[in-house]
Amino acid sequence: MMGRETLAPDAITVLPLRGMPELKPGDDLGALLHRAARAAGGLVEADVIVVAQKAVSKVEGRVVFLEDVEPSPRAVELAGDTGDPRQLEVILRESREIVRSRPPLVIAETRHGFVCASAGVDASNAPADGTVVLLPLDPDASARRVHERLVELSGCDVGVIVSDSFGRAWRQGTTDVALGVSGIAAVLDLRGTADAGGRELHATQIAVADELAGAAELVMGKARQVPAAIVRGIDVRGDGRVSRDVVMPRERDLFR
Amino acid sequence: MMGRETLAPDAITVLPLRGMPELKPGDDLGALLHRAARAAGGLVEADVIVVAQKAVSKVEGRVVFLEDVEPSPRAVELAGDTGDPRQLEVILRESREIVRSRPPLVIAETRHGFVCASAGVDASNAPADGTVVLLPLDPDASARRVHERLVELSGCDVGVIVSDSFGRAWRQGTTDVALGVSGIAAVLDLRGTADAGGRELHATQIAVADELAGAAELVMGKARQVPAAIVRGIDVRGDGRVSRDVVMPRERDLFR
Repeated sequence: MMGRETLAPDAITVLPLRGMPELKPGDDLGALLHRAARAAGGLVEADVIVVAQKAVSKVEGRVVFLEDVEPSPRAVELAGDTGDPRQLEVILRESREIVRSRPPLVIAETRHGFVCASAGVDASNAPADGTVVLLPLDPDASARRVHERLVELSGCDVGVIVSDSFGRAWRQGTTDVALGVSGIAAVLDLRGTADAGGRELHATQIAVADELAGAAELVMGKARQVPAAIVRGIDVRGDGRVSRDVVMPRERDLFR
Repeated sequence: MMGRETLAPDAITVLPLRGMPELKPGDDLGALLHRAARAAGGLVEADVIVVAQKAVSKVEGRVVFLEDVEPSPRAVELAGDTGDPRQLEVILRESREIVRSRPPLVIAETRHGFVCASAGVDASNAPADGTVVLLPLDPDASARRVHERLVELSGCDVGVIVSDSFGRAWRQGTTDVALGVSGIAAVLDLRGTADAGGRELHATQIAVADELAGAAELVMGKARQVPAAIVRGIDVRGDGRVSRDVVMPRERDLFR
């Protein structure tokens, strides 16, 4: 978490990273992002590179062929009349707990502690028909690998966010949020900071990584091959981790 | 809601609007925003002006003096040992339902259908000690009034978002979201759109107004007097309404 210092950026720019190739297991994602960033004018100090979870999962081989999956009775039940029981079986394997279900819709808590639709298991933008893509096993570690590679190649002290589109309780539509970060704060801690009138602030822990992920989504576009973006002009460098700073601990959670 | 056309912006810029005066009931917020925007270089077609709820509430007189409030027994109970029963009474009056409570913390559903901490009632950045600020009665209408004034003064077809910082279930920290919009889409509807591989998209309803509000928060800063920002470079013009497009209808809500 960052300290009490507050940010006062003059302006922020969000740039799409175009021209990324179709990704496959073992690809050097950091190098490919670096090449795309060079084509967009190069990286500068404190840039935040936001990369879609699906890109990360593909290079990490987090892909399952549904024909290899034997659905359990529970998966058949959750699939209802319209779902694919094999996909529900994959979702169950990725889940610590099913939070809500209305077949074939499932809201699950993943093994990372994320609460999201289908435990993040998804067939859109999958590498082939009949496959589904899973979330990375450790998205903070995924971000760190890309981060280290980008720092090495660019010579700039940049940060990295691995993002995905999550629904929210009580609100329609998805926003992109951070699944993992490296080299930046995940949450900006303003506790103890006063407002302009000297009264203590109300919203004191700002999920900056989630806001940055959402800003990046605006230029990424799911229907085109824009799996990454640069956010420039805000210095949020730090040693945040989504797993530690953003995932709500069960004992503090009013909604689990 | 916008149609199926997808956005492909080249780059988005987020600019803080500085130099706004301390606001009081009856102030012409649209004119003040227009003046601040002119100082920042002026508005251009399709700009989105994001303005903090607190600025809107102040000009709309949505301020309560706690010394005028008589707390009910329920408010005393919800305040516990550390809360102010009068503030809890105000929260109860703003609420349709208390969703969770752990004194003095209250998560409430407001009369608008928002689920948020303290029903949006807040003492930080309030006009004076002993006062609290309430959410606007109809934030879409608030956005529309500012919108109409900005279009009139600038001659540009801009959009407006009234934003606030909300916590989320399952995740720590707040992100800014849209309470009301005018002149833009609230949700971008991609249902029926295919991905690059021809498969139907997973995240098909994107809460763009919330992502824009979050992007604006990154330059607004709660501790300084930056109550507004311009998001430029993305054309999301439309006739969205948060009350209709974003607030989850009870009958579809898995979490109420």
